[in-house]
Amino acid sequence: MSLLVTGSIGIDTVTTPYGVSENCLGGSSVYFSMAASFFSPVRLLGVIGSDCPFDLVEVFAGRNVDLTGLEVREQSKTFRWGGSYQNDMDDRKTDYLELNVLAEAPPTVPAEYRDSEFVFLANTTPALQIQLLEQIEKPVFVAADTMNCWIEGNLDDLKVLLKKTDALIINEEEARLLAAESNLIKAGEKILDMGQGVVIIKKGESGSLMCERGGAKFLLPAFPAAKVKDPTGAGDSFAGALMGYLARNGKTDFASLKTAIAYGTVVASFTIADFSLKGLTSITKNDIESRLETLRKLTNF
Amino acid sequence: MSLLVTGSIGIDTVTTPYGVSENCLGGSSVYFSMAASFFSPVRLLGVIGSDCPFDLVEVFAGRNVDLTGLEVREQSKTFRWGGSYQNDMDDRKTDYLELNVLAEAPPTVPAEYRDSEFVFLANTTPALQIQLLEQIEKPVFVAADTMNCWIEGNLDDLKVLLKKTDALIINEEEARLLAAESNLIKAGEKILDMGQGVVIIKKGESGSLMCERGGAKFLLPAFPAAKVKDPTGAGDSFAGALMGYLARNGKTDFASLKTAIAYGTVVASFTIADFSLKGLTSITKNDIESRLETLRKLTNF
Repeated sequence: MSLLVTGSIGIDTVTTPYGVSENCLGGSSVYFSMAASFFSPVRLLGVIGSDCPFDLVEVFAGRNVDLTGLEVREQSKTFRWGGSYQNDMDDRKTDYLELNVLAEAPPTVPAEYRDSEFVFLANTTPALQIQLLEQIEKPVFVAADTMNCWIEGNLDDLKVLLKKTDALIINEEEARLLAAESNLIKAGEKILDMGQGVVIIKKGESGSLMCERGGAKFLLPAFPAAKVKDPTGAGDSFAGALMGYLARNGKTDFASLKTAIAYGTVVASFTIADFSLKGLTSITKNDIESRLETLRKLTNF
Repeated sequence: MSLLVTGSIGIDTVTTPYGVSENCLGGSSVYFSMAASFFSPVRLLGVIGSDCPFDLVEVFAGRNVDLTGLEVREQSKTFRWGGSYQNDMDDRKTDYLELNVLAEAPPTVPAEYRDSEFVFLANTTPALQIQLLEQIEKPVFVAADTMNCWIEGNLDDLKVLLKKTDALIINEEEARLLAAESNLIKAGEKILDMGQGVVIIKKGESGSLMCERGGAKFLLPAFPAAKVKDPTGAGDSFAGALMGYLARNGKTDFASLKTAIAYGTVVASFTIADFSLKGLTSITKNDIESRLETLRKLTNF
């Protein structure tokens, strides 16, 4: 089934204990699309300015990523983000943030994308996520991400969004904040009461937790990565592989969601092994399949 | 095979968001023995003072815990500990610590215990752990716990101990400190270089990680507990069930260790559901087996 992602395209400068990656390609929709494309064709919706040094057609060459929804604004500047990671790679500091084109009017969903069945709304204001979603005719399965500042500042909009989506994919601090509950299991259950059928909580190095409205749960550790060079994009790659797997099979039952989370975990583990997109562009589908089997062995008892 | 535990017996006062449990029975060897006794007979070695209000014979009645090694010192006072947990139940604050009898000469291993095959050395000074271990004739599998203050202050002794043990069971902060490495996978590998065959790292709410000398690893999430009333004793119960399971089967191959960790995870999840030992004394072996199957379902994909 068709898969649409709406999100940022950015120029990132990332500093980790392993070095600095200056002005590299980043952004949620980019990581998402790269990860999802191992499983399913992807439709990307995003905006860049005329300063963007990357040719996305070339970046995604041969990867089945539809760029009909890529808008280039000649008078605008591309979104830029700088971030640093200390020794604890789960802890990120923003060095600078230039919203640029992201602070302007959002892109319009092109006619060719309006029949999208699987939709991922990467992190942005909940009002904008709702506006984008309303342009999709009959979505089958919608997942969204969000972040602390919208939970704290735009909670009413966020609650409206949650009622319109099937799954929320957030990290553990966000889950605790949204639910006002420190116990993650309880937090997951409280978030389900806000409207979705499924909440997937990303715990960085500690893996992920899925809670389903019916009470079913699934827990998966992260893939044990001795080499973490740059955690940027891990969450969006996780979501990309997860949604790509679901869209490919067109099923969202609990067993499919479990396998989707496992693929998300595996693909994110490749993302963090190198700077920017290098961890993803250097692998094949076979590498993913092989690591999935390793993960199964590592967690099976 | 026979199983010996050496560790503390304490009078605890524990404060959590769910209430206060004043002057209740605690101590590493007590939690360990209660947990291990579901699987295997246990030999307990520990000392109390004449002020101890608990009749351990009664506490362990019908549970196959050998108290030959329980020493009561008429002129001494029992170890006392007070601790508080805030909303994040993984974070513990010590309110007071009265070593009392633990600051005196250690107990002697009775003749009847010297042929013990499986041995767990609960947390105390590494020098004392070595001294206790030297009284065991031919141990088959020795596991030890330790803590930050010995890693920081008694590292030479600790390194000697590690060469004499088969497994180290510690929490993640301790592992990072001991290895001087923030990445837990690398930390596990660096600790293995210090001498044991296996290191098992407890991550509280995030489960556990096992690294084996040969390179094999195992990751297991914690049992998803919505009700955490009192985390005290979780680590010692985990170790108790783990060692009890190994001792019962007399095998320590990787598959056995994996299942042992799963049992440790399950038993610890019962411990934290109530204050002091109530979470353990209110269950049967069937409850443990049933929750193990639930854990398998929760983590299998």
